[in-house]
Amino acid sequence: METVSTNRSHGGVQGVYRHASSATSTDMTFAVYVPDHDSGQKLPALWYLSGLTCTHANVMEKGEYRRLASELGLIIVAPDTSPRGEGVPDDPGYDLGQGAGFYVDATQEPWAEHFHMRSYVEQELPALVAEQFPVDVQRRGIFGHSMGGHGALTIALRNPGEWKSVSAFAPIVAPGQCPWGKKALGRYLGEDQSAWREHDACALIDDGARVTDILVDQGAADQFLGEQLKPDLLVDACQRASIPLTLNLREGHDHSYFTISTFMDDHLRWHAERL
Amino acid sequence: METVSTNRSHGGVQGVYRHASSATSTDMTFAVYVPDHDSGQKLPALWYLSGLTCTHANVMEKGEYRRLASELGLIIVAPDTSPRGEGVPDDPGYDLGQGAGFYVDATQEPWAEHFHMRSYVEQELPALVAEQFPVDVQRRGIFGHSMGGHGALTIALRNPGEWKSVSAFAPIVAPGQCPWGKKALGRYLGEDQSAWREHDACALIDDGARVTDILVDQGAADQFLGEQLKPDLLVDACQRASIPLTLNLREGHDHSYFTISTFMDDHLRWHAERL
Repeated sequence: METVSTNRSHGGVQGVYRHASSATSTDMTFAVYVPDHDSGQKLPALWYLSGLTCTHANVMEKGEYRRLASELGLIIVAPDTSPRGEGVPDDPGYDLGQGAGFYVDATQEPWAEHFHMRSYVEQELPALVAEQFPVDVQRRGIFGHSMGGHGALTIALRNPGEWKSVSAFAPIVAPGQCPWGKKALGRYLGEDQSAWREHDACALIDDGARVTDILVDQGAADQFLGEQLKPDLLVDACQRASIPLTLNLREGHDHSYFTISTFMDDHLRWHAERL
Repeated sequence: METVSTNRSHGGVQGVYRHASSATSTDMTFAVYVPDHDSGQKLPALWYLSGLTCTHANVMEKGEYRRLASELGLIIVAPDTSPRGEGVPDDPGYDLGQGAGFYVDATQEPWAEHFHMRSYVEQELPALVAEQFPVDVQRRGIFGHSMGGHGALTIALRNPGEWKSVSAFAPIVAPGQCPWGKKALGRYLGEDQSAWREHDACALIDDGARVTDILVDQGAADQFLGEQLKPDLLVDACQRASIPLTLNLREGHDHSYFTISTFMDDHLRWHAERL
């Protein structure tokens, strides 16, 4: 692992790191914020998964998480959203290929060689982070935005013992029922929709997956609300499964980091209480 | 004035606006954050001037000012750092031309036609903001970063009745005594250094300009500290003039927005107490 940059901020260190990933067969870049702590102390880690077009840098620059993460003693990990670089396939659309990994292990060409963001985020990067940073591996939570909210929900639902808390900003709750998800899952996983279910939070819940509880903040003025995000589907699935869901519909708020930063504190406190 | 974008955030509205400037003879873009307020209520406004290479967007995205600005009821105004666009002169260096207006009215060619950032920030934009936003024109403060810290200090020192409070992050305190300043003032104002003094905070103080007090936060690990920023010169000038200066040297902190965002709350409170 190579250090790209470190900056002192809000009583901690914001770092950016690069490593050769075996999951994606590319170099991968990620960000980790570590609050000051006692020597030998291990801190809970909260993982943030980003949305379409983003890298590790969007939430690092615009997420406004460092002040309260330091106060709460939370390490924040922000992976990239896909493999990148020369030799990595891409698509002209912003919603497929580089910047749009959808947190799946692709089985279809030309994506199958590099697009293994599920293995990367579920397995490879947590092992690296546990080795290189002062994290308490028993206390790990996950959240994310839009496509990253989808990633957070599905990863937590598949591995509730490993991720103790989950929340999301404006998540894609049912990729099998929206244009972004149908395009991405169809191209990465093929047209057999049974293979999509473990990458669809609502389908996972209907198939029996459970988490303790879920927090979602969703802008009421989000331009993707009705066609892509469809929080009502998550409300219904959680009701059927008796999963406590706190869904805050935020008047006037859109899909941007201006919304994410506004409710970041609430989400950090949600996770800190559970980790 | 044209609205480029508005986003709801932290209990207020972050807007970006564009207008045809008579000072610069170009279109100019600027950002204004307005916290929610009672109908008819006028709020104090705090102006943030940015550093080399920046636009209005850097502090808007990375400054982390909205949460506390809403709590304190402060409007935040962030102008661009220079005229821009086709037909506007530029320089290959990042420290001259577009993105590097230095808050002066240039008298030298090829800059004299458009580079009037002093008139723009001191006169034209305040008048427009007073007309278009719910500001109390009697309660106005100014701060900034690096080149923008220079702008804030010099504008406040020249107009202490109009700007009631002043602070800076890592300001250029004496452009006449550092490479950035000598290059910019020489090219914009000519080689007669007597014309530079009203654009040099330390020279202004030595020439009798006064403000009530000054707050400066400066990273101790700032790569520009010794060669360009030289806070000791401001310490000496303020001592000679009996201007109370609070200079916080921040261990481990560099010149970036990771530092600015860390101490943003302190600066907002400093201004709110004085406005």
